[in-house]
Formats: sequence, structure tokens, C-alpha cells
Amino acid sequence: MPNVSNLDMMMNPRSVAIIGASKNPDKVGHVILQNYVNAGYSGRLYPVNKDADEIMGLKAYARVGDIKDRIDLAVIAVPAKFVPGVLEECGKAGVKSTVVVSGGFAEIGQVKLQEDLVKIAKKYNMPTLGPNCLGVMDPRSRVDTLFLPTFKLSRPQIGGVSFVAQSGAVGSTILDLISGEGFGLSKFISYGNAAHIDEVDILEYLMNDDETKVIVMYIEGIRRGRDFVELAKKITKKKPVIVLKGGRTAQGMQAAHSHTASLAGSWESYEAVFRQFGFTIANDISELLHYAKIFASEPEPRGGRIGIVTNGGGVGVLAADAIGNSGLLKVGSLSDVTKKELRRKMPPLVNISNPIDIAGDAGEDRFNTAMSLLADDDGIDMLLVIALFQTPGADSTVAARLIHYKENSEKPMIVLTIGADYTRMHKIMMESAGLPVYDSPDAAVKALKALLMYYDYRNNTP
Amino acid sequence: MPNVSNLDMMMNPRSVAIIGASKNPDKVGHVILQNYVNAGYSGRLYPVNKDADEIMGLKAYARVGDIKDRIDLAVIAVPAKFVPGVLEECGKAGVKSTVVVSGGFAEIGQVKLQEDLVKIAKKYNMPTLGPNCLGVMDPRSRVDTLFLPTFKLSRPQIGGVSFVAQSGAVGSTILDLISGEGFGLSKFISYGNAAHIDEVDILEYLMNDDETKVIVMYIEGIRRGRDFVELAKKITKKKPVIVLKGGRTAQGMQAAHSHTASLAGSWESYEAVFRQFGFTIANDISELLHYAKIFASEPEPRGGRIGIVTNGGGVGVLAADAIGNSGLLKVGSLSDVTKKELRRKMPPLVNISNPIDIAGDAGEDRFNTAMSLLADDDGIDMLLVIALFQTPGADSTVAARLIHYKENSEKPMIVLTIGADYTRMHKIMMESAGLPVYDSPDAAVKALKALLMYYDYRNNTP
Repeated sequence: MPNVSNLDMMMNPRSVAIIGASKNPDKVGHVILQNYVNAGYSGRLYPVNKDADEIMGLKAYARVGDIKDRIDLAVIAVPAKFVPGVLEECGKAGVKSTVVVSGGFAEIGQVKLQEDLVKIAKKYNMPTLGPNCLGVMDPRSRVDTLFLPTFKLSRPQIGGVSFVAQSGAVGSTILDLISGEGFGLSKFISYGNAAHIDEVDILEYLMNDDETKVIVMYIEGIRRGRDFVELAKKITKKKPVIVLKGGRTAQGMQAAHSHTASLAGSWESYEAVFRQFGFTIANDISELLHYAKIFASEPEPRGGRIGIVTNGGGVGVLAADAIGNSGLLKVGSLSDVTKKELRRKMPPLVNISNPIDIAGDAGEDRFNTAMSLLADDDGIDMLLVIALFQTPGADSTVAARLIHYKENSEKPMIVLTIGADYTRMHKIMMESAGLPVYDSPDAAVKALKALLMYYDYRNNTP
Repeated sequence: MPNVSNLDMMMNPRSVAIIGASKNPDKVGHVILQNYVNAGYSGRLYPVNKDADEIMGLKAYARVGDIKDRIDLAVIAVPAKFVPGVLEECGKAGVKSTVVVSGGFAEIGQVKLQEDLVKIAKKYNMPTLGPNCLGVMDPRSRVDTLFLPTFKLSRPQIGGVSFVAQSGAVGSTILDLISGEGFGLSKFISYGNAAHIDEVDILEYLMNDDETKVIVMYIEGIRRGRDFVELAKKITKKKPVIVLKGGRTAQGMQAAHSHTASLAGSWESYEAVFRQFGFTIANDISELLHYAKIFASEPEPRGGRIGIVTNGGGVGVLAADAIGNSGLLKVGSLSDVTKKELRRKMPPLVNISNPIDIAGDAGEDRFNTAMSLLADDDGIDMLLVIALFQTPGADSTVAARLIHYKENSEKPMIVLTIGADYTRMHKIMMESAGLPVYDSPDAAVKALKALLMYYDYRNNTP
């Protein structure tokens, strides 16, 4: 195993060569260079192209060896057959790391070509990602090797969630989805064929990366099973890891085999390892996002007793059902003090029970009263606040109150709101202020449960 | 039981009196009148208010009896204690139906007041919805008794899905969500305390309403159990009914009891009836929408063998997993003809298997070829087309091709697409053309399964 776990040069390069950069907008190398220019990458940027003196106002070089500068990262976007030659040049020129976006290797049977690539990467001890991958993105360093234009695939803001994907399609859809979320991205790594650097290397790097608070991954198979298990023992003690595995059923495994030629073990054996070591298992892309969101912002809960505030009775009932179905969480019992204070401060039509149904005409005051009492109630561990903005009482003062309240909350708190444009406006308000917002009772409750399970694991594992 | 099942006067009134209409924008009666005016209601509109001669340019009447016209629907939005008096006046004036939006009856212990209301409704055989309800909406007739302004709660376009909700909160959130969907609304009925007209009356009306193709309902309890079972035997033979019940768990039942004082039977007994009579059971608000969408547009499938086209391998794997987990559907086997034609027409890198992974550079031609071959393959019953718009090949020509293809498709076909703004643009394109679009593999596959289960029931029940 090469010493590839330090991927710093790839994620925080001070100089990038784009080999295959092109003036032709249909070429992958054009889009990649364009994205660096658009993102305002502040390092030194070198297009490499035999047939051009200048691309997008930057001096172009015929070969990477002609550049009189240390190159931290070379992005390689040339036809597969030329990749070994280019990689050899990179090695000779002392390039520190490479990302090979080109496809046309083992995934279409060109095994020999891929083996050549690995030999060169090893010879120069040059961490090489891919081939056949989207590569890396980091909104802090503004590295961005994705050959997808920003109008098609929005780029997320800076945050604490890192995302690792074998599949480019799953990777790019999730990256696009994250751009619509409030939690933001730390690192994105799509590693394709994993010829040299593989999932274990990447996870080890992210485990030790201080900017990564939460790791989210999509995998179809893991090659180095024993190394993975060794890593799994350590990684979830440091930070939460959310995993979605493709190929959990016979039908999915068959599809995965056609896709990445993963010789996946049974889902049962994967699941056993994930559960044993406190991974959060997602069953769908949407669940990955739901879990990432709560882990990105919420503190450790003391337990699973949920306090619910709602301005719509029926949605409170559905949330209570979801809690009842969770098998772990409970609708908490209100203390006598809480009940007494609610009775004193709320209008007579408010039912003094949990869920606290503060009614459709509730404004920020009633939300604030209910949330404050739940915060002070020792029988409540986490808050689920249902704010329906179709109601007569709810407007942006309610959203602002929830945000303000959250800033001082020591208990995990999430918001459930459901609706179209007016609701979406308030959802964006709250999420951009770091408050996790969900759009179905089921999703909200699953997220609360995942948070509790993770910290239970961490606290009860020596 | 009154003869209330014909709610035509309420849903298609040619004249509406709004009792409690007001110039004061904080009053419910103001918002209701405003919504009628904004919606362009083409019938005759009469504000009733003792203290005004004119409201919003319309002549106002001191009492309903002063109006020299037949009133098909009176919307009553006055304080609870005045409702019996007003209702009596309506009865005397020959009003054909009423919606009582006012709250303050049985839900806060005012049982006697509610009994008075029922007596009057029965005396005049005057179908009365509510009290404590949002009332009705029909985008065809432009009747709209909701006291929620359109900037908070968007109103859906005309379509074939009717929605019935006991809870105003669940009703309004779903109505708002439907406004963002392509399938459109036939009737919306939020019936609140169900003092006179109840869920069984409403379902019977919708069963016989030709404009209603699909019924979606949220309930916490059903009062007339035997009548409901009699109706259940008939209704799903005519059209699909999707049901979400609040209070399925002990914790949810307790919340439901506080909410609508529903003395709900056990979920097991409800579930048994729903299953026996071919209802589609939703477990969450989001599932209601997912199911409504497919039933609104898709024909009867011949079986459960799914053909998948994807321009992203990993998402195809996740769809195959969801099918594997469904317990009913299968990833279909491609015929020899299909395989041969795919091999002939597709580039060499395309894997000839199901899912058909047409790769990230696929444009409309490859989508069209794959869909056409699946349509002609007798081993395929339904199509799941995964179109990821982050890919280099996909743009609006692909969305247009899917729409065009759908217009001639005899097999059920749905689309899965996942992403942010650029994706959402294409989703709206496709949905407004009547193509159901999903944003997670799990949701898409659950919808296909529900479609198959419903027609299996209908075909195998005498």
C-alpha cells in the first residue's frame, strides 16, 4: 500500500496543471479549466495542450515538464491510451498528485491499461485518483476537477460535510442536492475505478481532516476488507459516518456488477460491519441528505424523549406516529411545571400535552413559550418543532424566532415544515442559519433516531 | 342519515353567500371573500355583514334572508355562538348547503352548540360541512372557502385528484404541495368536526364524481364503521383510494385523541379493512403525493417486470435495490431481440443488461432507442427512466423526448431525476406534461408497486 492517505496536495493544491485543457467547449478539459477560472481559484493554474499557446487568457504549455513551477495537482483529461505516457511525464516532473478523469480503463475491459497506470503511480509514489472519476472538489481551496458545468450542477457552499462516492452519477446528484442545503460541503471525492487510491485511503484522510465533521459515502463494494474493518473501529469514534451501499439485494448486486464490476460481498456481511462499528446506514439518496443535515449541526442528545411543538394538530399526530414506529424514540412526558406554565401562558384552546398543539393562529410568542418550556424540562431530550407556514399565525417572524432560539439551545432541535413556495422561502431562511429543516414527519424522526443511535454507540463502545 | 351524499351544491354553486364577510383584512371572512374575488369566481357572490353596505365593490346584505336570489352555498365565518342563529336563517331562506369554517364547538368541549348545529342542518335537510374546517375548494368551479391567502398557500391547477382531510393542517399542507405537482386537483374537502357531513358522505360523493379519478384521504378516525365498510367494497372497484391514517401507534393515537377527540380503533383493524378492499396505504404525507401522482396519469400495468433506462450507473443500481426490496416487482429480463438491437444501436461501452446504462454522454437518441426497445419487449411491463440532468449529455431535448415518448406509451412509465435548480426546471417541464417524476429511487419504486397492487386487487376481486 502506497503512502497515499495524505491527500492534502490533491485537496489543497497551490498549483494545478490541467492536462488536456482545450479551447473547444465540447471537451472535458475545457469545462474543467473553465470551472477553475469561474470559481476564482487563487493558486497557480497551468493549461497543458500541445496545440495552443494560450487558453482563456492563460499561457498554455505543450507538456507538464515544460512548466517551471512545482505542480501540486495534475488533472488528466486526455484519451485513455495517452494517460500512461502523460502520467510518466508527471512523475518525472515531480508532480505531487494526479486526478485521472478519463474513462476507458478496467470499466470497459482495458485492464492492462489500468495496471500500467497503477505501476507508474506507485513508481513515483504519486497519489493518483481514478481513472474514470469526477475527481475532487473543495469549496475552501476552490479545487474543482468536475467536468460538469455549474449551470447543470450547482456547487455547494463551505461547510462540514465531506462526501465520498464511487459512482460519478450518485456523486454528482448528491453534490447538486447539497448545494440546495444549508449545511455546506467540506470535501467531495469521487474516486471511480479506485486503481491506486481507494475508499480506505480516502476515509483515512477524511478521518484526520479537521474541516470534516461528518462523512457521507456511497459505495458499491470495498476492496480491502480487513483494512476497512481496522479503520471502521477508529473512524466512528472520531466523527459520524453515513453510508449508502448500492447492491444490497440480488437485483441491485447484479446491476452493480455490470456497473463497476464490484465483486460485492453479501449485504448482510456489510451491514453487520456497519452496525458493529456505529455507521449510520442510509437506504436511499434522500436519507443520506436527511442524516447529513442533522449530524452537521446538532449536539449530542441526552436521550430519546422528544418534545413536539406544532401549529397544526394533524401533523403533530403524524410525528407522534413516526416516533411510535421508530422503536427507539418516545414522545416525552411533560413535567408538572411545564404543564402548569403552559396552562398559565397559553390560551385556553391549547391542549396541554405532548405534542403541544399551539394552534393555527400561533405566532412567534407561542412558539417561544413552548420551546423554552421544553428546553427547561428534564424529561425532554430533543425538540421537534413543526412550523406550518400556511397557517394564519406563521410568518417570517416565526422563522426568525426559531433561528434565534436555536442559537441558544443546548438540546438538539430540528424543524418540520411542509409546503410550496412560501414555505420554501422560510425553509431556506432557517437552513442557511444552521437549523436542520425536514419536509416529512418520517424523515425528521429518522434523523433524530440516527443522531441518538450514533452517540449511543460512541458512548457505549470502549 | 340525511341525504347529504350529493354535495353538488357545495362544490358547484352558482351563487355563494359569505356570512361574516368583512372589510377588516384580519378577519377570516375578509380572506374568504378576497379569495373568491381573486379566483375569478363566475357565479353570483353576496357578502353578508350587518355593518357594511358594500365590501370589495360588492353590495353587502345585513342577513342572508335579504338576498333576493337562490343561494346554493353559504360560507359561515362568524363566532361560534352566532352560528346556530345564522344557520337557522339559512334554512329559512332556502339555502342549499353550508360550510361552517368557525371553530369553537366540540373540539373545545362545546358539545351542545354542535348538537344545535346538527339539529338545524337536519331540520332543513341542508348539507352542512364542518364546523371547525377549512371547507372546500374546486379549481373548476372556483369555489374556495379556505381562509388562507394564496401567497401563503398556493392553489393547485385543475386535475383529477380529489383530496379529503379531517385535519385542516394536513389538508392545507397537502393542498399547498399539490400546487407544485403536475397532476392537479379535482376537489378538496376539509371537513373538520364532521358534525353533519362526514367522511363516508364525502367518499360516496367522490366515488360518483366523474371528474375525480383518484381519491386521497387523511383521517384520524371513522365514525360510521359499517357504512364505511359497505362503501369500501364498492369504491376501489371504481377508482383508486389512497389513505393516510393518523394514530397508527399508541403515541400517535394519544396525540390524535387530544387533537380531534377521535376514539380511534386499533390500527390493525383499520389496516385489515384497507388491505381487504384494495386501498393504497400511505405511511407519510410524502407517500400520499408519490402515490397520487402515478395513479393520476398511469394506465394499468400488465405485471411487475420493470425495465430501467439510466444515464447514471449508480442510480440504476439503487433503483434495482429498491425493486429487490419491494417484494413484488422484478428487474425484467431483456428479450434476445432487445439485446441484439441494443448491441447494434448503442455504442460499445453501453452494457447490454437491465438496467440499461446508456452512460453520462447519452442524449435524446439513446434514451429514445432504449425506451422504444423496452416498450416492444414483452418481458417488460413498466418503464422507469432515470434521467440525470447533471450529465454532459442530458438537456431539455431529453426532457422533451421523454414527454413525447410518453404520449404514445401504452405501458406505465415514470421518471426519476435528482438534483437542484437545473434538474427542477426539467422536472417541472415533464410533470406539467403529465409525466410522473420522482426524486428518489425508493419513492419511484414504491409508486410502481402501489400501481400494480391496486390493479391486481381490482382484477382479482369479484
